[in-house]
Amino acid sequence: MFENEFVEWACRHPQSGAGVEIGPGDDAAVVAAGPQLLVTTDLLSEGVHFRLGDQPPEWIGRKALAVSLSDIAAMGGRPTYAVVQLLFPRSMELETAKRIQSGLYGLAAEFGVPVVGGDTNRWNEGLVIGTTVFGTPGPGGIWTLRGARAGDAILVSGAFGGSLAGHHFRFVPRVGLADELSRKYSIHGATDVSDSLSIDLANLADQSGLAALIQSDRIPFREAAWQQTLDAVQHPKETAGGNDADSPVPRPGSVLHRAMTDGEDFELILAVDPDTADAILADRSLSVPMSRIGSFEPGSGLYFEGRGGARFPFIPQGYEH
Amino acid sequence: MFENEFVEWACRHPQSGAGVEIGPGDDAAVVAAGPQLLVTTDLLSEGVHFRLGDQPPEWIGRKALAVSLSDIAAMGGRPTYAVVQLLFPRSMELETAKRIQSGLYGLAAEFGVPVVGGDTNRWNEGLVIGTTVFGTPGPGGIWTLRGARAGDAILVSGAFGGSLAGHHFRFVPRVGLADELSRKYSIHGATDVSDSLSIDLANLADQSGLAALIQSDRIPFREAAWQQTLDAVQHPKETAGGNDADSPVPRPGSVLHRAMTDGEDFELILAVDPDTADAILADRSLSVPMSRIGSFEPGSGLYFEGRGGARFPFIPQGYEH
Repeated sequence: MFENEFVEWACRHPQSGAGVEIGPGDDAAVVAAGPQLLVTTDLLSEGVHFRLGDQPPEWIGRKALAVSLSDIAAMGGRPTYAVVQLLFPRSMELETAKRIQSGLYGLAAEFGVPVVGGDTNRWNEGLVIGTTVFGTPGPGGIWTLRGARAGDAILVSGAFGGSLAGHHFRFVPRVGLADELSRKYSIHGATDVSDSLSIDLANLADQSGLAALIQSDRIPFREAAWQQTLDAVQHPKETAGGNDADSPVPRPGSVLHRAMTDGEDFELILAVDPDTADAILADRSLSVPMSRIGSFEPGSGLYFEGRGGARFPFIPQGYEH
Repeated sequence: MFENEFVEWACRHPQSGAGVEIGPGDDAAVVAAGPQLLVTTDLLSEGVHFRLGDQPPEWIGRKALAVSLSDIAAMGGRPTYAVVQLLFPRSMELETAKRIQSGLYGLAAEFGVPVVGGDTNRWNEGLVIGTTVFGTPGPGGIWTLRGARAGDAILVSGAFGGSLAGHHFRFVPRVGLADELSRKYSIHGATDVSDSLSIDLANLADQSGLAALIQSDRIPFREAAWQQTLDAVQHPKETAGGNDADSPVPRPGSVLHRAMTDGEDFELILAVDPDTADAILADRSLSVPMSRIGSFEPGSGLYFEGRGGARFPFIPQGYEH
């Protein structure tokens, strides 16, 4: 039987780790934890977060775990264990199911996160993968959505936009970077970018009771976003860069608009005081490039900064799943 | 937007508890835990574990959480927190979605298990609900599938069979009973009955490296199983009870066969030494009736005991999801 064969195969994968007392196969797993436990959960589904056949099946399992690892990184934490739920279409071959789970196991091994439990079922509809990942706070404590302060710099890791060209499967969850930052710097607030830079930044500002003010020329965009912009015939190269002369707000279709709205970048947004921002930007030892794209200010909403400090509002938009 | 409205509604439900530091709404929840953490996870899906419209929507959410609470009870643990993943069909009204989640919240409140996080999405296919529940070991330690010993009595809580008549939605997870037993008795091994009494007992025996020997006249069956048996015209009342004269093995269609194979009973199976079994069976303070249905013996497999101690093998069967 498919489920039994799959579960037997899965239970043969060693998922040992320092704290794993009872792994897959019992009514519940038993792991060492505490005193503070981070928990995050995600459910990815066919047609929403991926399409079968568009990429190797391993990438789907990898992504399912990666999005949860990214959430733990966004709390400044270190991932410790994972549990996985799988709902396979009856039409799927066992070999494909194993390849999906193998992709997840690969990333789990890379990040030292044992998969300590799971649930596997089949049905007549699309593929669904759920992940729940646990973590411990990093040495710098827990980074929340409510911690940004007025005057804090907005720092981001990496670059944005064009994620659907492949990044949304292949991204590296910023667990390593979060650990580096947690050890060396005081981070006031943080989140990761899943919906989009504009939506997740607006949420961080809103939860902290602040406005976010962005300088559009500071937004780092991914090569893929630039390529997609050039490929769109309605945006010739000379105007693809961003805003019109009279407004700092990126035009729809421009590369900066893509960076603000494409989503699934899984980069970190951080709120830190300006001196810490200077130190982080000057720190050549960090494994991921960092950019300062603006500041948190009293008020509410998301704005681009124009000449003379004028504020131009931007309605957060993102990838509609 | 449906997801936003639902999440805002859900975040307004107080999910406070002694150890909840950060509840729903951040990138991850933060809770007190340790040193040992129990974790169990389940994924329920439309057409497999329930059908929309066959019962109030609240029952679906209730069941999703109840099956995970049952797993924690089967480890002798106490449930502490839960996270919930919801994948709603686009055709579902927001009101129905809220009623599903309300059923889950109701059971969570009843058992003092705050829902500390979740993930909500919509798609064009069926309803999926995932639950991950955490727990702490009870005072009697952790009950595993590998702990049964040769000579141990097989004890079960409650009764079996006919679950589809309603019990599979309305069952009370045996958290309270597990706590009572954990405080007073030494339990060698345990599991809960989800697939069926025969499948889950065979698994407990197999994981402990033993055979399970059952006395068919000791199996407690639910009223609903008896009614279903009588309703099936091919089994007149006089033969509905169980086995033929020359074999102790329940005939297919008989009430005892239903009790062994229907599944979704969510009762406990325990392995305890014979003296402890006597004490438990004589204990009038326990909240759920207990029965001794047989013993674990050297060997492997599942058997019914015939005259003179003869063993009649039984192939485990259960509800095919």
